[in-house]
Amino acid sequence: MTGFLVTFEGTDGSGKTSVINGLTEKLEQLGYQNRYLVTREPGGNKISEAIRHILLDEEYEGMDPKTEVLLYAAARRQHLVQTVLPALKAGKIVLCDRYVESSLVYQGVGRKVGIEPVLAINNFATDELKADLTFVLDIDPEVGLKRIANNRLDEVNRMDKERLEFYQAIRRAYLKLVAKEPHRLVAIDANQELAQVQSDVWQVFESKILATNN
Amino acid sequence: MTGFLVTFEGTDGSGKTSVINGLTEKLEQLGYQNRYLVTREPGGNKISEAIRHILLDEEYEGMDPKTEVLLYAAARRQHLVQTVLPALKAGKIVLCDRYVESSLVYQGVGRKVGIEPVLAINNFATDELKADLTFVLDIDPEVGLKRIANNRLDEVNRMDKERLEFYQAIRRAYLKLVAKEPHRLVAIDANQELAQVQSDVWQVFESKILATNN
Repeated sequence: MTGFLVTFEGTDGSGKTSVINGLTEKLEQLGYQNRYLVTREPGGNKISEAIRHILLDEEYEGMDPKTEVLLYAAARRQHLVQTVLPALKAGKIVLCDRYVESSLVYQGVGRKVGIEPVLAINNFATDELKADLTFVLDIDPEVGLKRIANNRLDEVNRMDKERLEFYQAIRRAYLKLVAKEPHRLVAIDANQELAQVQSDVWQVFESKILATNN
Repeated sequence: MTGFLVTFEGTDGSGKTSVINGLTEKLEQLGYQNRYLVTREPGGNKISEAIRHILLDEEYEGMDPKTEVLLYAAARRQHLVQTVLPALKAGKIVLCDRYVESSLVYQGVGRKVGIEPVLAINNFATDELKADLTFVLDIDPEVGLKRIANNRLDEVNRMDKERLEFYQAIRRAYLKLVAKEPHRLVAIDANQELAQVQSDVWQVFESKILATNN
């Protein structure tokens, strides 16, 4: 295995997509064409996209939290085997929007299944393959949710307290994961202007991945 | 929890459907209307049926064995929470076509994931709820596969050795599970005529479930 798995985590509105786009632009400029792969979870191939549909489509209401854990893990497994591992074996840098940590905080903490059992399921699903580097885009949930609402302040003011508390719990859970593995997980202050966030990400990416890659 | 969970296991062609039909006919005759529920795995509700589609539709080829384990467990979880538990709480006898043991033998042994990890995933999915009684319809795979082929002997003769060996391994794995928990799992000789199989099942069902239920 000669490639690198780099994953991106964060609550909604933390700017994962913009950060990944900024990173790939830089990689293109530096001549990394065909040496990286951008992908996302859940999804990335036919089976995982079908699972994603069940997870995210509103028609499938009343899903039990443990069903959710198992479906995310199933999509992750298939994505890993079919998409991520072949790219890593080919020596590519895989940039993946969400990975195990999303399940730990969203289902483990947010939906109260517990971090330990969710980790056990994911260790089964991934054969304990961890990302080489995980960016946690850390943002005040109020700021993130305002971004999603396109700065429509009214929308956000009407957002109920419960939803905000859910995102605050997710944020705290992410930061605890960072504290546990500070060399593998890096928190980036995503409250800043996008250009600054992208620059912070690039600095870490350059020193931890590109410096090792060459 | 006042109801009973009775599950039916066996390789293809072992006659699960006919046995369940025979059992419900008897229950109807004895006045058990509305006191039992017939259901199946994977499936039984909207989410689980959607998962079933991914598992069984040929368009989703190349599925990793661990993805399969996780998808069956997800369908099982949702089916349990949404369909089985409410019926058990209402005091019903739930007759379910396949449960945990199918995953242990098909994915654990047949697809070589291993019984222990598959059991761990299923313990998570079921909160360790076991069936009160599990019928293992034990049949010589050659007999079972001939039944499926509607006694078209040519078809079966052409059946490759590999497929037969797969079913033989499944059969042995089922019998090992029976040997481990002989009070909860009961093997029924399904090579016999259907009427005899149904009579054998009824005898066990009557003494283990109905005698306790009244």
